[in-house]
Amino acid sequence: MERLSRLTPFYVMQILKEASSYPDAIHFEVGEPDLPPPPGVKRALAEAVERERFGYTPSDGLAQLKEKIAAHYHRTYGLEVEPERILVTPGSSGAFLMAYALVCDFGARLGMSDPGYPSYKNFAYILGIEPHFIDVTAKSDYCITPDRIQNIDALQISNPANPTGNIYPDDLLESIAKRCDEKGVWLISDELYHGLVYETHPQSALAFSERAIVIGGFSKYFCMPGLRLGWIVLPKELVQKAQMIAQNIFIAPPTLSQYAALEAFDYPYLDGVRATYQKRRDYLYEALSDLFDIPAKPAGAFYIWADVSRYSDDSAAFAKELLQKIHVAVTPGIDFGRYGTRRFVRFAYTRHIDHMAEGVRRLRDYLASRSAKT
Amino acid sequence: MERLSRLTPFYVMQILKEASSYPDAIHFEVGEPDLPPPPGVKRALAEAVERERFGYTPSDGLAQLKEKIAAHYHRTYGLEVEPERILVTPGSSGAFLMAYALVCDFGARLGMSDPGYPSYKNFAYILGIEPHFIDVTAKSDYCITPDRIQNIDALQISNPANPTGNIYPDDLLESIAKRCDEKGVWLISDELYHGLVYETHPQSALAFSERAIVIGGFSKYFCMPGLRLGWIVLPKELVQKAQMIAQNIFIAPPTLSQYAALEAFDYPYLDGVRATYQKRRDYLYEALSDLFDIPAKPAGAFYIWADVSRYSDDSAAFAKELLQKIHVAVTPGIDFGRYGTRRFVRFAYTRHIDHMAEGVRRLRDYLASRSAKT
Repeated sequence: MERLSRLTPFYVMQILKEASSYPDAIHFEVGEPDLPPPPGVKRALAEAVERERFGYTPSDGLAQLKEKIAAHYHRTYGLEVEPERILVTPGSSGAFLMAYALVCDFGARLGMSDPGYPSYKNFAYILGIEPHFIDVTAKSDYCITPDRIQNIDALQISNPANPTGNIYPDDLLESIAKRCDEKGVWLISDELYHGLVYETHPQSALAFSERAIVIGGFSKYFCMPGLRLGWIVLPKELVQKAQMIAQNIFIAPPTLSQYAALEAFDYPYLDGVRATYQKRRDYLYEALSDLFDIPAKPAGAFYIWADVSRYSDDSAAFAKELLQKIHVAVTPGIDFGRYGTRRFVRFAYTRHIDHMAEGVRRLRDYLASRSAKT
Repeated sequence: MERLSRLTPFYVMQILKEASSYPDAIHFEVGEPDLPPPPGVKRALAEAVERERFGYTPSDGLAQLKEKIAAHYHRTYGLEVEPERILVTPGSSGAFLMAYALVCDFGARLGMSDPGYPSYKNFAYILGIEPHFIDVTAKSDYCITPDRIQNIDALQISNPANPTGNIYPDDLLESIAKRCDEKGVWLISDELYHGLVYETHPQSALAFSERAIVIGGFSKYFCMPGLRLGWIVLPKELVQKAQMIAQNIFIAPPTLSQYAALEAFDYPYLDGVRATYQKRRDYLYEALSDLFDIPAKPAGAFYIWADVSRYSDDSAAFAKELLQKIHVAVTPGIDFGRYGTRRFVRFAYTRHIDHMAEGVRRLRDYLASRSAKT
């Protein structure tokens, strides 16, 4: 069957499963925040349960939530985004499905970075879209550059990116947006990890093109992964079709999650979230730099992309070895593509520094005693 | 663009929007239960919020929920369904996406009844699947019969059906399942409204074929629409691919909803839900029978499919007229297909009998004074 023949599994699922059998496992594999959401979220949930908000909302989400998301763009980026251009979706996953269905016809070519978030290509396969992999390296800080925008109908970028933690500087983002507009290429910017950026304050792609499609969500910066809520900002011309897709494919996003999200925009609390991840990044980046080659210091998200080739030519086997020998779980690079990924593993810094420090200690001891390359 | 060119809008959305502007509107248009879920659901939600269950669950759902769903099949149908064959999905909508992606390749032909639930065909369009419409009438009680299973790769049935409220008797369901198996056609049985059946106790398609794909959910019988939780039961051979789809396309179903659903299987309460809808059906069926032709008494779900052709040859215009003149909202038949649908409207009996009685009074007065046909 063509649709599913190229679908790729998540190799990390095996790691996750095995790690869960070790009570002393150290978790660098999990891309899920461990911090609670802003306290108002919990209160809003309790109240929504008490008020029995168990019915459907509009298929594009509560009007007041769309207004809050619009206000977030104004406050954070100085951008005016009409709430009518926003649709609330079941997770940012729902937003990808929507975006690709809207702008990629059957056989259309969708550009995306390799390494990159694996679900982009799997959405494409399921929808009959042809992924066009753009290999990226530390030379461009893992960014796609405008000269690579060739022979594609749409371009998916991630800003910040998973698994590499890079961000797109504003001038590069602007030149990509312009290039896409010139070439009639739809730009889809995954900004799910926006907010989790540590030294700079990157702009949204919305600032640089009226045709940009931007995807955000509540799972990372807002610390609400299990509430499964995301959003998409669309050019006006696509909104009506998007509504039809939402009505048919989603019915509506989860209701309680939407009432919760009304209280998610607690900026003092979110500043604390960012500061916590920054400290974790600083700690882990420095600690791992002694053990692995890290070609680019990550500027955002909560991942470090580490070259382990001084120890192994097969990072999947290496990840398995670390798990079995010292109960340290990491994600093998091959989960993120084929371009150089056999040399890399991904570390997530989504746990407390004490937890990570124990992992670093085990790694240091084990790798010191281990023969250099197997 | 081919993918979206045939997507159909929900005409009822206009009705819904306009009806919401009339404070005295009578709502026969809404396919959403107005009864609260079993009381344990609310308690479980409050507890899950208190315990901050805000993280991801496994992509196929909590193991204990899959076990409860399996137990439900045992208790309700006497069937042994291994929990491994069940995936919990974001709404039953997620289950349709999953089912079609799993068994329909690009260009595959998916049979479905006309009239029928409109999203089936719209899922098909989005996924590059060719809907094959099978016209059904009151002659077969709106059921697809085995002789109609021709030149298709998969067959979607709804049992009970929206908008017609018919059910598939066990012997018919069995012969359909056998015919599908003989012809190598995948049978996808939408059993979302199972439980809301009033005189009989129909069997699940799982009883008649090991290859049947069955979709259920918590939105109707269990009265939890806004919690967006459904499930799919798959033949073993499809489970691994389904897991990959779930990991990529959904990440996971909403977490709080899953903890809530653990308490949804409160059968004494659910018996009361069914009895309430049965009373409403009995009331509305009798009241409307004086005013419209209802070719088949609905046996399940919460809809009545009424022929309004003695008043109008354009049921969409007629629905609009009822809304504007007497503030009675119904769903025009054209939302459900093209086969004879211009003569029909759908009444949902999802509101209290007092509310419906006021609507019936207005209909009776208005239609008596109105000239017969426009």
